[in-house]
Amino acid sequence: MIVVMKPNAPEQSVNTVIHIIETNGMTAHLSAGKEVTIIGVVGDKTKLDTRSIQAMSDVEKIVNITESYKLANITFHPDPTVISLKHTSIGPENMTVMAGPCAIESEEQIMSAAKAVKEAGATILRGGAFKPRTSPYSFQGLGEEGLKLMQQASLETGLDTICEVTSLKALDLAVKYVDMIQIGARNMQNFELLKEVGKAGLPVLLKRGLSATIDEWLNAAEYIMSYGNSQVALCERGIRTFETATRNTLDLSAVCVLKEKTHLPVIVDPSHACGVRSYIAPLSKAAVACGADGLMIEVHPDPACALSDGAQSLDFPEFHNFMKELKTFTILAGRVY
Amino acid sequence: MIVVMKPNAPEQSVNTVIHIIETNGMTAHLSAGKEVTIIGVVGDKTKLDTRSIQAMSDVEKIVNITESYKLANITFHPDPTVISLKHTSIGPENMTVMAGPCAIESEEQIMSAAKAVKEAGATILRGGAFKPRTSPYSFQGLGEEGLKLMQQASLETGLDTICEVTSLKALDLAVKYVDMIQIGARNMQNFELLKEVGKAGLPVLLKRGLSATIDEWLNAAEYIMSYGNSQVALCERGIRTFETATRNTLDLSAVCVLKEKTHLPVIVDPSHACGVRSYIAPLSKAAVACGADGLMIEVHPDPACALSDGAQSLDFPEFHNFMKELKTFTILAGRVY
Amino acid sequence: MIVVMKPNAPEQSVNTVIHIIETNGMTAHLSAGKEVTIIGVVGDKTKLDTRSIQAMSDVEKIVNITESYKLANITFHPDPTVISLKHTSIGPENMTVMAGPCAIESEEQIMSAAKAVKEAGATILRGGAFKPRTSPYSFQGLGEEGLKLMQQASLETGLDTICEVTSLKALDLAVKYVDMIQIGARNMQNFELLKEVGKAGLPVLLKRGLSATIDEWLNAAEYIMSYGNSQVALCERGIRTFETATRNTLDLSAVCVLKEKTHLPVIVDPSHACGVRSYIAPLSKAAVACGADGLMIEVHPDPACALSDGAQSLDFPEFHNFMKELKTFTILAGRVY
Amino acid sequence: MIVVMKPNAPEQSVNTVIHIIETNGMTAHLSAGKEVTIIGVVGDKTKLDTRSIQAMSDVEKIVNITESYKLANITFHPDPTVISLKHTSIGPENMTVMAGPCAIESEEQIMSAAKAVKEAGATILRGGAFKPRTSPYSFQGLGEEGLKLMQQASLETGLDTICEVTSLKALDLAVKYVDMIQIGARNMQNFELLKEVGKAGLPVLLKRGLSATIDEWLNAAEYIMSYGNSQVALCERGIRTFETATRNTLDLSAVCVLKEKTHLPVIVDPSHACGVRSYIAPLSKAAVACGADGLMIEVHPDPACALSDGAQSLDFPEFHNFMKELKTFTILAGRVY
Repeated sequence: MIVVMKPNAPEQSVNTVIHIIETNGMTAHLSAGKEVTIIGVVGDKTKLDTRSIQAMSDVEKIVNITESYKLANITFHPDPTVISLKHTSIGPENMTVMAGPCAIESEEQIMSAAKAVKEAGATILRGGAFKPRTSPYSFQGLGEEGLKLMQQASLETGLDTICEVTSLKALDLAVKYVDMIQIGARNMQNFELLKEVGKAGLPVLLKRGLSATIDEWLNAAEYIMSYGNSQVALCERGIRTFETATRNTLDLSAVCVLKEKTHLPVIVDPSHACGVRSYIAPLSKAAVACGADGLMIEVHPDPACALSDGAQSLDFPEFHNFMKELKTFTILAGRVY
Repeated sequence: MIVVMKPNAPEQSVNTVIHIIETNGMTAHLSAGKEVTIIGVVGDKTKLDTRSIQAMSDVEKIVNITESYKLANITFHPDPTVISLKHTSIGPENMTVMAGPCAIESEEQIMSAAKAVKEAGATILRGGAFKPRTSPYSFQGLGEEGLKLMQQASLETGLDTICEVTSLKALDLAVKYVDMIQIGARNMQNFELLKEVGKAGLPVLLKRGLSATIDEWLNAAEYIMSYGNSQVALCERGIRTFETATRNTLDLSAVCVLKEKTHLPVIVDPSHACGVRSYIAPLSKAAVACGADGLMIEVHPDPACALSDGAQSLDFPEFHNFMKELKTFTILAGRVY
Repeated sequence: MIVVMKPNAPEQSVNTVIHIIETNGMTAHLSAGKEVTIIGVVGDKTKLDTRSIQAMSDVEKIVNITESYKLANITFHPDPTVISLKHTSIGPENMTVMAGPCAIESEEQIMSAAKAVKEAGATILRGGAFKPRTSPYSFQGLGEEGLKLMQQASLETGLDTICEVTSLKALDLAVKYVDMIQIGARNMQNFELLKEVGKAGLPVLLKRGLSATIDEWLNAAEYIMSYGNSQVALCERGIRTFETATRNTLDLSAVCVLKEKTHLPVIVDPSHACGVRSYIAPLSKAAVACGADGLMIEVHPDPACALSDGAQSLDFPEFHNFMKELKTFTILAGRVY
Repeated sequence: MIVVMKPNAPEQSVNTVIHIIETNGMTAHLSAGKEVTIIGVVGDKTKLDTRSIQAMSDVEKIVNITESYKLANITFHPDPTVISLKHTSIGPENMTVMAGPCAIESEEQIMSAAKAVKEAGATILRGGAFKPRTSPYSFQGLGEEGLKLMQQASLETGLDTICEVTSLKALDLAVKYVDMIQIGARNMQNFELLKEVGKAGLPVLLKRGLSATIDEWLNAAEYIMSYGNSQVALCERGIRTFETATRNTLDLSAVCVLKEKTHLPVIVDPSHACGVRSYIAPLSKAAVACGADGLMIEVHPDPACALSDGAQSLDFPEFHNFMKELKTFTILAGRVY
């Protein structure tokens, strides 16, 4: 941490800052210059409340040098995390494909989807039972009935399953039926839910918030991990920008940044990011080329009749071709599926 | 709603769209042109699943004409909503000032703050008992103990109180002690919490999400209202942009937009928006000039020792002067406090 | 400037950085810690090429402490700049209102507008002769003919005039006819044009780029000033965000930031920022309350027939009322017009 | 084009709109509904000034259905454009790699770079002679001397050359020495320069503006094309967002969008987009996988001593490896280099 004093800050203010730092068990290094005076702070700053320094009128700004997340930090945990599920695992050698409908609509729909995505090579079945929808008048999901269908689909196909939870109540239900919990973009900073998911113990896929920085995202993962759950994967799903040609702007450089900052696996969801069916294949290949550990793809037996996000869903033959096309890129990335 | 067909869409596709519209009890108006064919849709579209149309390959796009929120919509409810609290109300003739510390830290802190803000003219005491913090290692609030202090402060000063809730558990506690519930920016689309807040019945202040559009924000208000609670105020607190000189970018034009779209009162929080003490007074005057119904201001007995957001808090003399300076602008806006 | 070394950077790399700093005549202050090593750099860094340090593999990042603009910096020039025109001046005691049509269309249009805005209290006539339009097929302005009409309007009304230039050719023409040059948002970083405007000597209004940070904006002003022209005013006109309810997001906190960072006058253009007629009056009052030195307002004899930006123009009676309404806010800000 | 009337717009206003449309030779299709009235407009709208309709108080909004760019539009020109240079071409079967230093610094630097990039497989040499720099005190480029060095490098290596121009003066010089003109992000909407580049006739690489939408970008290309120059390629180089871990956010979905909207070739510049050396290879592979026609890569003999953008430059061995790694992705994309 570095404290930058305002130009012409009186010596007394500088000494006060140094005093605060040192009484908190840290070391202060003073660099007094004609233009500016800076104080380097070295030591364990968790004991120090930096805000008390920041609020002083002679302090220009505080620059943080080290990240506030520890458990998610690659510096302290250089080996890539492997997430172990019943039938598969997410991690450095696998290319995990999570596929299925945006929302679970009926037994027939989810069963046919499960079989189709399994056959094409996916290892995890996705499907929403609790849908966070912008308008209260939109379809909100089948709830527990949907979860039971996911369990059934898993039993029949050998796929692991993932389902988004949007509340503690939904979480309590989901842990009974599915293999992995998803936290959606809108709940990335629902810290109370993150804590509960941390305690629940099931592997978690944490989606990036609509306008979350990578640093905030890793701190959100830290919430889950600090409550005892280290089985966390991150999912890039596009960020909000001024561009309107795509639903969101898929930030593939985030995959590169994450690979340098964290040991957690990184999944990319091109379906939600772009919202346009024809962009899913090229963006998926791009994600694999960037080092992603997996993909999340919307697949629906009949996109034109989907109750949610039909415009960005692939139908079964499209998904089959998609997986075939992707194969070479997967091999090139040194991965298997 | 308008359906725009792709150039050269075959007549058959056009007829299919018209068929779907009409079998859902709506009326289709066809405009077939050389460049483009559009289908105007008139009637009650809640029965229609527009996604099934959007997913058709010959459909270019669907343009929504009417807003999806009804209860929050000024068209159906032209009179401004007044929010009635025990001792004060928020609405067209009042300039409501909610003031107090970011986080409740101790009895002494909140009591002294309550007295100071009351004396200066504020009518609602703000104070956080459950703090949503980016890092799990930051101070998370006093919880129920904090709520009890808020109640005590209310009894001693006659101020109404507002407190943020971040979970159903926190909500269940808060309704026992405070007069108004705040939903923070990070929970604006925590739809399950919105539903519960809708059922709880207490007046609600709904903060805008970090990158929420005004339309999404009004739909979030609609969630609360559709569960039976019409006592909702909106709070603009800055949006996320590329500019780094301020914490967020305060969007004052949002106040103007809201005044044309909704009957709900609009509060502005310049403290969180800019994060810099010296900008609070000018931005508050600006907010009043724009038509805001109130302000939310951070006040702390000793900002340099605040456990949260000290850099943007006013101390008691600063808040006293702030309220004096604001007076003329309030009068000019035809309001009282 | 602060150089932050990567964790575990070898001593040799640290010494190399120190060596580079010191051979460039600056002083290095080392703070070596367990977590991180930082090097504070004090002295005149214009001789140093910081990129050579930044590119070293053991360097984490370089943090700039002091601003790169000097002439525009309030630290070195605490008194507010006054811009002197023929008939009026822009500066601390005046509330300058620049008004007129977006584009000059005809003698009758500009003359009637000039008289109307003069009568209502504006002191500068705005009007575009060279229009930067997104599509090449849109109306591009009257060119020199328009400039002549501006000169004529000035002679008849005693108003000063301002006109945007979009090229060196346009600048060469404009200096012959108008009193102040405008650089539009799209040319804020057209550095070659800035240099020429710096040499031309006429006062300049520099609009903020569509997504320019305040720091970049002040550096653009520095370009003009470093070529000998200190008569520069800045114009906030909205930045690009994800919100679509307004054309751009007017960033009024930028006015507060600028007032702390620069001595140059600050003008606000609510017409272009929001693009909606009914928001202009409230946002103008807000701008005045924030400390703006002036406003730029679009006024057109017949907005419905305007060749450019009619939707955001006031007609003459609307502008007359606008100026009357604004009066009290101007007085409150301690200014006159 | 669709005109949406405000709810309860009087019949008279509707008739006025229809009248304006029809007197301009177009056809109006009325859809009058209980909730909303819309008017579909079909025909050649270039004669109509839509602003006069938009400014009417009973008009809610105008929705454009067709794009305003024609020459750049794939609908009217389905075959991909091939850009022909002296020694190479940019287009559907080639994977063009433009490589070289950010700024030309000396004969030795540019000659060694030219040889190195040629040997590794690049076909176009990039190098800046006119540098648009945020601060006027930064290195601004060698000017004509730099252009001459580019010509010399071309003669010695058989590479084609590309150089950014920032003014008409620079353009007049550049056409004498280099094979392709680059318009940088800051000048994407410097419309006067675009017109001149359109007349100059040399192939052009048009970079996307820092916060330009794809639609604005294609309209900027239309400027160049409408002045007679159809040899235009587009270069995605990252857009400005709130994320600070990378310099800009590379928008690879823009490649997918462009491939559906235009016949012009698309180049991706990962160096400027991310600003971090280690992300260049993965993002380049991703760009190729997305369908890009080429890449622009910064290469410098000694990045640590580069006068500009050293942190994101590859040195010669790094570039050599980069090109080897890229090969398989190029082949997979069905392209050669």
